[in-house]
Amino acid sequence: MPIDQRKPPHRPTPFAFLDMDRLRRNLDRMQMIADRHGVALRPHIKSHKSVEIARLQLALGAIGVTASKPSEALPFIRAGTPSLLLAFPIIEAGRLREMLAVAAEHATATTFILDSEAGAEALAEAARPAGRIFDVHIKIDVGLGRIGVLPMSSALTSLGEAVARNPKLRLTGLISHAGHGYGASSPSMLAQIARQERLVMLETRERLASLDLPLRLTVGSTPTVLATEDFSGIDEIRPGNYALFDLTAQRLGVATEDEIALCVVATVVSRNSQHYIIDAGSKALTSDLGPHSSGGLAGYGRVLLADGGDAETRLTVSRLSEEHGFVPRGDTDLPVGTRLLILPNHSCPVVNLYDRLVMGDNPVTDLAVSARGALS
Amino acid sequence: MPIDQRKPPHRPTPFAFLDMDRLRRNLDRMQMIADRHGVALRPHIKSHKSVEIARLQLALGAIGVTASKPSEALPFIRAGTPSLLLAFPIIEAGRLREMLAVAAEHATATTFILDSEAGAEALAEAARPAGRIFDVHIKIDVGLGRIGVLPMSSALTSLGEAVARNPKLRLTGLISHAGHGYGASSPSMLAQIARQERLVMLETRERLASLDLPLRLTVGSTPTVLATEDFSGIDEIRPGNYALFDLTAQRLGVATEDEIALCVVATVVSRNSQHYIIDAGSKALTSDLGPHSSGGLAGYGRVLLADGGDAETRLTVSRLSEEHGFVPRGDTDLPVGTRLLILPNHSCPVVNLYDRLVMGDNPVTDLAVSARGALS
Repeated sequence: MPIDQRKPPHRPTPFAFLDMDRLRRNLDRMQMIADRHGVALRPHIKSHKSVEIARLQLALGAIGVTASKPSEALPFIRAGTPSLLLAFPIIEAGRLREMLAVAAEHATATTFILDSEAGAEALAEAARPAGRIFDVHIKIDVGLGRIGVLPMSSALTSLGEAVARNPKLRLTGLISHAGHGYGASSPSMLAQIARQERLVMLETRERLASLDLPLRLTVGSTPTVLATEDFSGIDEIRPGNYALFDLTAQRLGVATEDEIALCVVATVVSRNSQHYIIDAGSKALTSDLGPHSSGGLAGYGRVLLADGGDAETRLTVSRLSEEHGFVPRGDTDLPVGTRLLILPNHSCPVVNLYDRLVMGDNPVTDLAVSARGALS
Repeated sequence: MPIDQRKPPHRPTPFAFLDMDRLRRNLDRMQMIADRHGVALRPHIKSHKSVEIARLQLALGAIGVTASKPSEALPFIRAGTPSLLLAFPIIEAGRLREMLAVAAEHATATTFILDSEAGAEALAEAARPAGRIFDVHIKIDVGLGRIGVLPMSSALTSLGEAVARNPKLRLTGLISHAGHGYGASSPSMLAQIARQERLVMLETRERLASLDLPLRLTVGSTPTVLATEDFSGIDEIRPGNYALFDLTAQRLGVATEDEIALCVVATVVSRNSQHYIIDAGSKALTSDLGPHSSGGLAGYGRVLLADGGDAETRLTVSRLSEEHGFVPRGDTDLPVGTRLLILPNHSCPVVNLYDRLVMGDNPVTDLAVSARGALS
């Protein structure tokens, strides 16, 4: 039975409301894209942090999951993901101890990333007591200017050689994240960034051809994956946000408002001459304006009416205290007690504020945010 | 033994590090101010959300605590606070059910706030099955433009009369929060806001003199309380942030950098030509620029070196991904692996990201963030 997002469950507000119907459509859409282009889908779980949602992704055909931090990966390994890519550079061997033990217990295949010789040494040191040879990908900076080696640098070839020589490491791929796509102002600019990422990755593999190793190319962010039709030469995509979407995805033109599967349900608790005051503030919505400190959105969330209110109404959360949000009234006249739906600027850090995603009136149907707060 | 904040414990980064020595000094300072001026101190626990820290505040002389939401109040009632002020307007009786049961079990005195007749009715409805008469304060809007009745409005007197007539309610006070003080650009402007808050509250009580009720005046925010020397006529202050402080408190001139008791410890995991990349992003630091969407601070946190690095070094987190922070290198040259201390823009929402506040190498000394994520 499809859920009408505009009739959220009657639970104490504020709460994070997951529209399972929209979520399933979003998951289907991405798996179909991956299947159509013959690329593997390895979704990043940082967006939903939910073992239940990861199970849906795996059931549809995802080959495994991507996580950022070792503690974030644990519940997904315990839940039986067949393989896990840890897409954050490990520079201290000890940080992997627990994750390696749990992965061994569950026979989970693991892949690590690195962008420095210090990282290669840390991974080799972690592999030694485990009696293992680690599969590793070299991170390539395709334009975000964050982690990763520059594709045309001498650092790339010397790092590639160092990893290939290391008996505890097996160089299996190159990995990129075109997060600068979040700064795009049009779908065509996004498509251009996706094209550039693909070409850079192909060229970078070419630069390492002398190593004579089969290197997988794994790319992806939700916006770039959805803005392109050309995946030739790419082996794997790792979008995360697509499961839930948000106002940023809509701003970028890769999702419609009707595809946003997460909202925060709040209540008008007071009103003054200028504003409705709602019971959701920065601790319920975050102060995030967009991924990677991108901007382009006004305020801290778009406000829709719940419970059969005027479906056309759109207001904005303009200001946040910790437990209160300010919503300019415009020409509306809503009574205290009105329930509102807040579509978030950026779903991923919002989910991280909640222990549960609510789906219905009965808490038994809530989804646990299994990796909430798993930062290290 | 005083803790040297610049030598944080060796725990997996990022983590929230509490400097207990600074915390104790901050708690002492505020209690001394309250004692010197003969006002009761009822700290807001929304900043630390920790039962252990509330116990320290009560042991020093706080008469009880302030909380925002009913679920946030629960651990503090269970821990034995003698009284609790719930400083958020309740507009639906059912929302108090659990809190009332737990407060009855622990014989905790409770006070509620309201700013509308709908709120008065909801509280009276909640009092009825409990067989109780509720102590209530009317919230006064002294300039933030958030919740509260305007002091010179006819709404004030009619609400006062309605509450006084209601057999389930006992009007015991007037409450304000001068959160607009966070927009001040100088200590003298803050002092002026504090003065105005005090005068408005005295006048407002005067306007309700015909009710012939003894009304307590409870005011407070950390900046206004610290910027004034005149509390005459005020009965109670409710600062919260003073326990931890942050860059906002320093910007406002009410705390020094050495008094900031909370920081996030992070590690440089990569570096490129422009930035150090650290393992703390928006999920470890929040994207908050200041309370009530105030601004005036550059970036997402001030960076100091840990572990004996140059004590004079100050850098800034300029950009946040979810799990990575960008720190412009300036003229420094720090290796991958360097540990950093990040002083937060706004401590309160940062604490809310963590289950534990770290004090030492052994997790047994961690303080639980008892009310983390308690939003409803």
